[in-house]
Amino acid sequence: MKNSPALIAVDWGTTSFRAYLLDAGGAVLDRVEAGRGVQSVEKGAHEKLLVELVQPWRSDGAGPPILLSGMIGSRQGWVEAPYVRAPAGLREVAAAIVTIDTETLGEIGIAPGVLVDGVGLGPDVMRGEETQIFGALAASGRAEGLFVLPGTHSKWARVEQGRIVSFATYMTGEAFAALREHTILARLMRAGEADAEGFAAGVSAAEKLAAPGDMLHAMFMTRTLGLFERLAPEQLSEYLSGLLIGAEILAASRGGGTATVIGSPALARRYREAGRLLGLSLETAPDGCVALGQWALFQAWRRSPD
Amino acid sequence: MKNSPALIAVDWGTTSFRAYLLDAGGAVLDRVEAGRGVQSVEKGAHEKLLVELVQPWRSDGAGPPILLSGMIGSRQGWVEAPYVRAPAGLREVAAAIVTIDTETLGEIGIAPGVLVDGVGLGPDVMRGEETQIFGALAASGRAEGLFVLPGTHSKWARVEQGRIVSFATYMTGEAFAALREHTILARLMRAGEADAEGFAAGVSAAEKLAAPGDMLHAMFMTRTLGLFERLAPEQLSEYLSGLLIGAEILAASRGGGTATVIGSPALARRYREAGRLLGLSLETAPDGCVALGQWALFQAWRRSPD
Repeated sequence: MKNSPALIAVDWGTTSFRAYLLDAGGAVLDRVEAGRGVQSVEKGAHEKLLVELVQPWRSDGAGPPILLSGMIGSRQGWVEAPYVRAPAGLREVAAAIVTIDTETLGEIGIAPGVLVDGVGLGPDVMRGEETQIFGALAASGRAEGLFVLPGTHSKWARVEQGRIVSFATYMTGEAFAALREHTILARLMRAGEADAEGFAAGVSAAEKLAAPGDMLHAMFMTRTLGLFERLAPEQLSEYLSGLLIGAEILAASRGGGTATVIGSPALARRYREAGRLLGLSLETAPDGCVALGQWALFQAWRRSPD
Repeated sequence: MKNSPALIAVDWGTTSFRAYLLDAGGAVLDRVEAGRGVQSVEKGAHEKLLVELVQPWRSDGAGPPILLSGMIGSRQGWVEAPYVRAPAGLREVAAAIVTIDTETLGEIGIAPGVLVDGVGLGPDVMRGEETQIFGALAASGRAEGLFVLPGTHSKWARVEQGRIVSFATYMTGEAFAALREHTILARLMRAGEADAEGFAAGVSAAEKLAAPGDMLHAMFMTRTLGLFERLAPEQLSEYLSGLLIGAEILAASRGGGTATVIGSPALARRYREAGRLLGLSLETAPDGCVALGQWALFQAWRRSPD
């Protein structure tokens, strides 16, 4: 019965809802996406919305088990699933899945996030990314590696023996947007095609920085390089992107080794290109890490002693 | 006739207009401030506005010479006074003052800004800050030093033999505002009294950063330190301020030596406190650097061969 539905796996994040119907081999039978992230759902409204969104998979009023991961388990979500402390692998995360009894959907699992604390500048957290990393590990058959999930808040995680041992968040995407849209840098910028030359100039600037505070100087160069026409108005946004992504990669990959990028094809391409310019090797994880990770987590949950 | 008016000196910046009536010894007889910065004045409207604002000093329809400095000499200002290339002291800047003939005010001088190019990441520019630095030099009788003009775009300049030999702009103030107001960091922040503990935590974080890209990680700590209640909601904005100012000071003061802060008392206090925490010496320039610098520049202009 490999093709009969075995799991409804949901990655329910801050801004998006992605659900997968998986068969008993973990293969995706069907999927649903909706712009109904945690931030758009009021307390008390989660169950009704979930019923609506996965209704096609429960036509007879019943259905396979349901496992949710991502920000849905945060204080701002449905029910809080407290963070598991790193090092954390499938076993530790599965053991901390919180079960809730619902009226219409029966028992539902909500996965916790992962916490790293006591090292570095302060505590750091992820919710949902751990599941994608488990998916990338499952896809490659590996149990070690450095993984990057680029975006608004990029996560870099190091995995040893199948467990996330450390990680750090970089505000790259959000800092880029705030600087591009809400500072003087916006004035000279003009929208245009993605520009390889502007991006490379930014990555090259990142490589030349000596002190952390030089970032604040290099950002301003987005303006003066435009003022003095060293870069065209269409290239300035790319310069800023290259500067921030280049600096992120240089800082986060210090431990060495090839990093695996888990993300959208466009963003993964941008990170790989910056890596190439910096002489660092980045490879792209296969598609489908979310569903693969949810499936692996579900199996570990089933084996879990609780 | 030391007390008779000898110069109307105007610092006409992006957001503010500050004019001084100086006597023949350079002392301030009177002053006018207005929120009529360059960005609020249309092309062609500068003369009329200037007449209005300095009218009290020209009651008989005539008056002392007028010298303007700041963004008024930029492409967005009245008439462009092209940048002078560093190294630039009073002599070089005075020689590049642009004279315009006005209908109602006669001949007016517009000071140029200073450009540094061909070193570092790209060209860098200042307009108006050079005059304040000349004022700080005049006030102290010194001809050397490291000067910082903190703010939206902090400038750090090194002076040798009375000339600005190099400088760099740090987007500290504007990056702080963009991050505080337009990112997730805003959510946990609560307004409060300036908090020494939060500020010190930020400066301490700046000191621990190893790579430039670590800035993007440390910024995110503003959120997690709040989430885990290591800092109170009222301390988070101060943490971010300490982080950025600390990083700026560490990067910009690498050449060594005591830096002199030219700025508002509140901002100067903040920079001195960060310097103290970092074991670096910062001192505050006396008040009145703007008028002192304009006076020194005026005298050099008078001596100028053109």
